[in-house]
Amino acid sequence: MPHKSFSSSDLEKLTEEILKSYRDDSGTNFIDVKNLPVRDKVLSILDSLKELLFPGYTGKRPITSDNIRSVVQEILVTVRRELAEQIELALRFKCKLKNCPNCDCKVMARESTEKFLSRVPHIRQMLKDDVQAAFDGDPAAQSTEEIVLSYPHITAIAVHRVAHELYVMDIPLIPRMMSEYAHSITGIDINPGAKIGKRFFIDHGTGVVIGETAVIGNNVKMYQGVTLGAVSFPKDEKGQLIRSKKRHPTLEDDVTVYAEATILGNITIGKGAVIGGNVWIRESVPAGAVTAIAEPESMYVTRSRKKNPGKKTES
Amino acid sequence: MPHKSFSSSDLEKLTEEILKSYRDDSGTNFIDVKNLPVRDKVLSILDSLKELLFPGYTGKRPITSDNIRSVVQEILVTVRRELAEQIELALRFKCKLKNCPNCDCKVMARESTEKFLSRVPHIRQMLKDDVQAAFDGDPAAQSTEEIVLSYPHITAIAVHRVAHELYVMDIPLIPRMMSEYAHSITGIDINPGAKIGKRFFIDHGTGVVIGETAVIGNNVKMYQGVTLGAVSFPKDEKGQLIRSKKRHPTLEDDVTVYAEATILGNITIGKGAVIGGNVWIRESVPAGAVTAIAEPESMYVTRSRKKNPGKKTES
Amino acid sequence: MPHKSFSSSDLEKLTEEILKSYRDDSGTNFIDVKNLPVRDKVLSILDSLKELLFPGYTGKRPITSDNIRSVVQEILVTVRRELAEQIELALRFKCKLKNCPNCDCKVMARESTEKFLSRVPHIRQMLKDDVQAAFDGDPAAQSTEEIVLSYPHITAIAVHRVAHELYVMDIPLIPRMMSEYAHSITGIDINPGAKIGKRFFIDHGTGVVIGETAVIGNNVKMYQGVTLGAVSFPKDEKGQLIRSKKRHPTLEDDVTVYAEATILGNITIGKGAVIGGNVWIRESVPAGAVTAIAEPESMYVTRSRKKNPGKKTES
Repeated sequence: MPHKSFSSSDLEKLTEEILKSYRDDSGTNFIDVKNLPVRDKVLSILDSLKELLFPGYTGKRPITSDNIRSVVQEILVTVRRELAEQIELALRFKCKLKNCPNCDCKVMARESTEKFLSRVPHIRQMLKDDVQAAFDGDPAAQSTEEIVLSYPHITAIAVHRVAHELYVMDIPLIPRMMSEYAHSITGIDINPGAKIGKRFFIDHGTGVVIGETAVIGNNVKMYQGVTLGAVSFPKDEKGQLIRSKKRHPTLEDDVTVYAEATILGNITIGKGAVIGGNVWIRESVPAGAVTAIAEPESMYVTRSRKKNPGKKTES
Repeated sequence: MPHKSFSSSDLEKLTEEILKSYRDDSGTNFIDVKNLPVRDKVLSILDSLKELLFPGYTGKRPITSDNIRSVVQEILVTVRRELAEQIELALRFKCKLKNCPNCDCKVMARESTEKFLSRVPHIRQMLKDDVQAAFDGDPAAQSTEEIVLSYPHITAIAVHRVAHELYVMDIPLIPRMMSEYAHSITGIDINPGAKIGKRFFIDHGTGVVIGETAVIGNNVKMYQGVTLGAVSFPKDEKGQLIRSKKRHPTLEDDVTVYAEATILGNITIGKGAVIGGNVWIRESVPAGAVTAIAEPESMYVTRSRKKNPGKKTES
Repeated sequence: MPHKSFSSSDLEKLTEEILKSYRDDSGTNFIDVKNLPVRDKVLSILDSLKELLFPGYTGKRPITSDNIRSVVQEILVTVRRELAEQIELALRFKCKLKNCPNCDCKVMARESTEKFLSRVPHIRQMLKDDVQAAFDGDPAAQSTEEIVLSYPHITAIAVHRVAHELYVMDIPLIPRMMSEYAHSITGIDINPGAKIGKRFFIDHGTGVVIGETAVIGNNVKMYQGVTLGAVSFPKDEKGQLIRSKKRHPTLEDDVTVYAEATILGNITIGKGAVIGGNVWIRESVPAGAVTAIAEPESMYVTRSRKKNPGKKTES
């Protein structure tokens, strides 16, 4: 196909086409959107919070008994200001969607931020226990410090416990921005709506999916590739998806879920149950049960017979 | 083992060994390679394009009806220059491999860049529909804005639709640099060669693999861990792999593929078919079919009996 | 719930609560910890080493036959200094844990660093062969250069071969910081303790887990989602996990493991065996064997009959 070089009128024409594509929707562009949380700032707030939750972990600035008080105060003051800014943008954005002219987004942002900050000691306590759960649950861990410094589990659960607090306060956009950031760097996908108890541990983690309405008890351990998912999408009379209905599993205390297990629907896995790897569960499992899949028929043949070549998966 | 400290002659000897290791190949070093695309610049081009495709999404610079025209022009001019530079380097690199002294890489780079830019309105239209497909397909989504701002699917499909345009123009190196960047941050691995129709949605995404010669129709939805892979590697008479042969599946319109399903080979999944989670498919599936695996025999035993302990997968 | 705005006494109270939470443990905070490797510096060392292992790959600075010698010397000198610093911090950290007042961490750090550097030619040779294995094993690869520039496999195996050398020298913290960095950007999780032979190739990679005591021979190829894991956690008489016991599989030469296969326990996969996709293996497999799962009963029904709706996995 012959191609003539771009003239400036070609460039003009292309500009027009692109501008035209912006005019017929407002869902995928942000023109004239005055209020939108800024991802970089949200991630910066997460960084500051991580320093508060695991002080000194970066090794970059020495934290000592002498300066720890002022470090904590400094972070609290910074986060209070920056988080309130981002929350206010998120609330104004939702106000615009839902047309609520009588609410004061600035006041609501300030209140939400302070409510969140008052939860920080609780979050820290939960995370201390999560770290201990990881150490107790993983023979490859040499120290709790190693876990804090490098385990993807800690990044994922720390971000989750922060995002969840904002989710329950109905803050728009920001919780999901946080959780998808953690998803990107750890491969662990926990929706901010999920409720997770104490001493939670995910080993390895890549491929874990925990849905919005999942509920997880205390002392729960799981491995890579586990899915706590939903089975169907109820729709309302207008054919619109019903959002927020409980549709994900509940795991009671002391449950262990091995790698690649898939647990679907609003079912309950009873206290102390063990879900074997690769198992497919769609009905509730009683307390103390141990589930496993029937051992797959493995066929062992020598290459010369080649009766049943292994399933090859390549690209 | 006693160890003597490094003397400068030790350092000299080590330097020699390392230099020697460079001399006997040219496939893993880039010495005297004048022409190589620079990854940082390729990623910077992707950033600029994302701003064009979803203007204002970063929230960093206010985009308004007043400045949008000049913003678009500015990005087009910048990308035209920088992409042409990188494409020229990639073409020169391939020229060197294939010894084609008569082609003018600079002219070819300019033409390819302008051809690519003329496709931007099309890419944008496709992405608007991909965003809508995500919103319609995921009850956890609160708004299309949330999807654009945070869903890994959008990063993966936006980068793919860009990389694919460059792939079909036979640009070397750059398409794969782009797709592996998206793979790294989303866990979604889509080869730039794959052809993907309208209104495509991948929910969660971690572990999805879509091979080079896969073809996907319109309104297709899939979940985490789905593989569209190949089954064997035909080799030519020299024993070399035959590259580029169609060896991946074709998914027709309206197909849904649930989590962890594996679909292999140059087969067709017919219009509207539903492929169940964890299913293994090696033969074509007729239109409208619903496939599922036989429910695995789950054994439920109490801990005291411990007859068939769950398969434990840890590390 | 009525909420009063934060007064400065509220802020004071919150600061106190947070400080209190730091006092009752030392496993999750780093106050008064003088010696801790700095993650950013460890990652910077990895960058320098990657430049040494694949000189010129970034395309940023021209590497020529004229300057290559001084580039290599410069990197060796820089890494020797910076790696010794980080190793010294890691050793001091462990010294504190294990209370060994008679060792000289500075001298040990220097020796370890020089021992590591003397292994660089070996690492480079291994990586050249890994790249060739990738090219020979993947029909989608256009050139070895493309593999070095963009394949996640190369990042993962390069970091592993570096981290492993430090692991066998008993360097604390740093090997795992390196491997979890690679895990984060590639989705491939290889514990630094794993021993991996020549010409190793992981295609796609997302979800691969290779445990601490795994042993892999030469010419081994595997695909996404493969797990080489352990089956149980022996505990000692105090109820503490026994760490470091061989508990992961051994794969002999020429083994191929297809996607999502799970191989568990201290078992051996014999030379040349082929492990099919999605197979679950808990016992040793003889040399030359080909394992596959029994073809799952796939049920094909039309939508109108809807007898056995596909297993839907969504969230």
